[in-house]
Amino acid sequence: MGDTMSTETRPGDERFFLRAGPFGLARLAEVSGSDVRPAAEGQNETALFRGVAPLHVAGPEDVSFLDNRRYLPLLENTKAGAVILAPAFADKLPARTAGLVCKTPYLAWARIAAAFHPAPSSSGVRHPSAYVSEKAEIGDNVEIGPFAVIEDGAKIGSGSLIGAHAMIGRSVEVGERCRIGSHVSLTHARVGHRVTLYPGARIGQDGFGFAVGPGGFETVPQLGLVVIGDDVEIGANSTIDRGSMRDTVIGAGTRIDNLVQIGHNAQLGRCCIVVSQAGISGSTELGDFVTIAAQAGLIGHIKIGDKARVGAQCGVMSDVDAGADVIGSPAMPFREFFRNVATLRKLSKKSSD
Amino acid sequence: MGDTMSTETRPGDERFFLRAGPFGLARLAEVSGSDVRPAAEGQNETALFRGVAPLHVAGPEDVSFLDNRRYLPLLENTKAGAVILAPAFADKLPARTAGLVCKTPYLAWARIAAAFHPAPSSSGVRHPSAYVSEKAEIGDNVEIGPFAVIEDGAKIGSGSLIGAHAMIGRSVEVGERCRIGSHVSLTHARVGHRVTLYPGARIGQDGFGFAVGPGGFETVPQLGLVVIGDDVEIGANSTIDRGSMRDTVIGAGTRIDNLVQIGHNAQLGRCCIVVSQAGISGSTELGDFVTIAAQAGLIGHIKIGDKARVGAQCGVMSDVDAGADVIGSPAMPFREFFRNVATLRKLSKKSSD
Amino acid sequence: MGDTMSTETRPGDERFFLRAGPFGLARLAEVSGSDVRPAAEGQNETALFRGVAPLHVAGPEDVSFLDNRRYLPLLENTKAGAVILAPAFADKLPARTAGLVCKTPYLAWARIAAAFHPAPSSSGVRHPSAYVSEKAEIGDNVEIGPFAVIEDGAKIGSGSLIGAHAMIGRSVEVGERCRIGSHVSLTHARVGHRVTLYPGARIGQDGFGFAVGPGGFETVPQLGLVVIGDDVEIGANSTIDRGSMRDTVIGAGTRIDNLVQIGHNAQLGRCCIVVSQAGISGSTELGDFVTIAAQAGLIGHIKIGDKARVGAQCGVMSDVDAGADVIGSPAMPFREFFRNVATLRKLSKKSSD
Repeated sequence: MGDTMSTETRPGDERFFLRAGPFGLARLAEVSGSDVRPAAEGQNETALFRGVAPLHVAGPEDVSFLDNRRYLPLLENTKAGAVILAPAFADKLPARTAGLVCKTPYLAWARIAAAFHPAPSSSGVRHPSAYVSEKAEIGDNVEIGPFAVIEDGAKIGSGSLIGAHAMIGRSVEVGERCRIGSHVSLTHARVGHRVTLYPGARIGQDGFGFAVGPGGFETVPQLGLVVIGDDVEIGANSTIDRGSMRDTVIGAGTRIDNLVQIGHNAQLGRCCIVVSQAGISGSTELGDFVTIAAQAGLIGHIKIGDKARVGAQCGVMSDVDAGADVIGSPAMPFREFFRNVATLRKLSKKSSD
Repeated sequence: MGDTMSTETRPGDERFFLRAGPFGLARLAEVSGSDVRPAAEGQNETALFRGVAPLHVAGPEDVSFLDNRRYLPLLENTKAGAVILAPAFADKLPARTAGLVCKTPYLAWARIAAAFHPAPSSSGVRHPSAYVSEKAEIGDNVEIGPFAVIEDGAKIGSGSLIGAHAMIGRSVEVGERCRIGSHVSLTHARVGHRVTLYPGARIGQDGFGFAVGPGGFETVPQLGLVVIGDDVEIGANSTIDRGSMRDTVIGAGTRIDNLVQIGHNAQLGRCCIVVSQAGISGSTELGDFVTIAAQAGLIGHIKIGDKARVGAQCGVMSDVDAGADVIGSPAMPFREFFRNVATLRKLSKKSSD
Repeated sequence: MGDTMSTETRPGDERFFLRAGPFGLARLAEVSGSDVRPAAEGQNETALFRGVAPLHVAGPEDVSFLDNRRYLPLLENTKAGAVILAPAFADKLPARTAGLVCKTPYLAWARIAAAFHPAPSSSGVRHPSAYVSEKAEIGDNVEIGPFAVIEDGAKIGSGSLIGAHAMIGRSVEVGERCRIGSHVSLTHARVGHRVTLYPGARIGQDGFGFAVGPGGFETVPQLGLVVIGDDVEIGANSTIDRGSMRDTVIGAGTRIDNLVQIGHNAQLGRCCIVVSQAGISGSTELGDFVTIAAQAGLIGHIKIGDKARVGAQCGVMSDVDAGADVIGSPAMPFREFFRNVATLRKLSKKSSD
């Protein structure tokens, strides 16, 4: 596979990422909700940590992380000053390494990494090349990048960051501390607080609606908006069409990956996960905590219940019950799908014998 | 599923959409090719209507719409002043509601909604920040948005609208009354009249062509164009590569949804429908009135006959006859696909008994 | 299918493409590594050629091309002055047509077409509307298009071409003679020499990483880069996320088509081919010379061996051996897949008899 290590840079390179700290163990424990397990030898509890790194790269001033039994051999040999891990692995720590012990090590890791490398926040500077309508309302401390466009009547909440070449259409509302990526187009929309739109996301264009007329297709006006709840993230080059007669709604806390398509009038609940290249057709409704895996497709006008999980490449043609796991095209329960695969393999072998 | 109603705004919000009218019933009947069936009581035939709304939201000054028996209970309780519907449902109208009766209610709806909310048209204003080459030919009444780029030799037909950050390359021809969305890139192309390109569409870049050389892949120059017929629409973030030795052609009236890929030299006929995330590989030819459903994939160098329908997620590896319905991967007739699904389920059950 | 010929323009239209030449047979033979087989009659060996065209369009000053027995009837009737072809077909040349005979005619074609129509190269002109940070390092002879943005600390190698509206983020390194298309966003990345990024490609945004917290999802900082080797091409609107703790790596010579998703930490080897709308999930590793066909999906954390081929729409859930051919969802060997298809058809027919 080639020596990919040779191309590896240290995570959190300061040329590309912000850096905060250094932090002591007590502070890291507080940030992450962990208990400190001091190193058996060699490490002073007043030691300061400067960053995060994987087990095989970390040094004495780095915090590292273990959440999978598979990587125990790396733990044994790590030079990390501290490692975040579950209680079950705490006694495997090398003598010079402190533990940050907690039941949810991945969450603790997210928080400690974010403490060292906070997400970019607004500089409050409006680039002189940006075009901002005099009829737009721009909150305090909003950063606006080069060649960004903000049209008449748009409102941008305080602390938000509008990337280069982003286009915020007429009357659009963006909440506080949002990050609108470069090249985003955002029209016909109301967006909550702390929302992140990644570069090239297309929000609010016409849905795919037309009637058959005598001389060809005739466009059905798309008269709804896109409404995006707080803390939503929408991936690069994803597309969310506005509603036709109601709004397309993305519930608070939902995370949408890259190249995802959401059709007009779709209703997504809270804290859903939609993985890359999945497609949700018009007027389909997702409950809360639904997971749609990569490249899955949902036809229109169906309902997916709370906490249901739709597998990768699944083709969903009818409602899915709350809590159900489906996969295959057409969709069926996971167990049935894999039983079918096994049955067909067996019959196929027999028939070729 | 949460109370999504609470997030609903009235369709056609004037902050986001143009609004025309008010219109009387006679005018609406004329626009839509309907027959007026006056309300049994309470409504003057000279009443004026101001907009459109769904049955459960509409008031006495709104026009609403019914095209599915499923929504008859909503019709019974609607407060809409008028409802567009088929003759079969006309006797279900509440006493205070007029009918706009016609055989194609969805088409009538499209036309009435468009009468109240016309599509944006050109303001004729060129934003001072746009870069327009002196060697470009710009027709009358062309609107050019902020930071748009129009290169040497490009021609833009009268009444067209070029969005913010759109890029129209050298020598490209765009017809009259086109709408080129924000962030579109359009190069190596000839575009007809009344064409809409949604934000982020990529038209005219190199097709995916290379030969295997001794030191790696070597690019094969892509020397054709993209030719787009009149009244075509191409969705957000879709990609259409230019031809290698002939042109890639999109026939008049064809509608392409978001995130669709069209490979080099593909030939699409008139009034085709290509739904989101479908992919059509290089040199494949579609007849007229072909439907390609979401996430379907067609390999290269095949022919799909007129009026054929390719189902969602279908994988088409060979020619499809005119009028055929196929689905599955590899593609097969609809009936065969669903029979296979049933057979496998039965065999699988038996084998696990 | 309509008369698509009527829309055909001659390949290499000078309004859209550069043109070099004319060239004599000796030069064309040299460029392409072919042997000249002079025309039996009517053609002087000092004749000059001005362009390339398909067999049925070419005239006496054009070079054409045959690589498939299927097109022999076109060869018989061609008016092309010269045709590139394999030795096996050389005796089928018409009397007035010279041959450029070689074992790899498609490669020879690529080179001759590129001789007549070289790829656009940098004009060295920086458009006055571009925003280039004073802290960026711009090499010699770099062309920068209208409204391009180059941020602090970015380095652009000599001879590179930065398209209109492209955004090159802080500290990004771009090698020599690269072509960065319009509307590209390129952040958190190191890019080799002679790399082409097509319009709308999104490189370097955050990967899709989050932990479940008590109040919803919490973002895991993505602290790696995207590292792109020499001679890589990445298609329009494709998305490549940066790594979380290591870099996402695209090996030298690899070609990625449009609308492809590459997740964080993925490692692609040298000279891989990834066709449109395919998706490679996080941390998955491809060897060298791997082919991933259109719309295929690979789950995360698996390894695909050198020269393996993954079929269109394939769903790969586990490692694939070097040299293997897989297809289906879940993936299986090609032979097994088609045997399954045949078995199911047979059983299904029997069961419906």
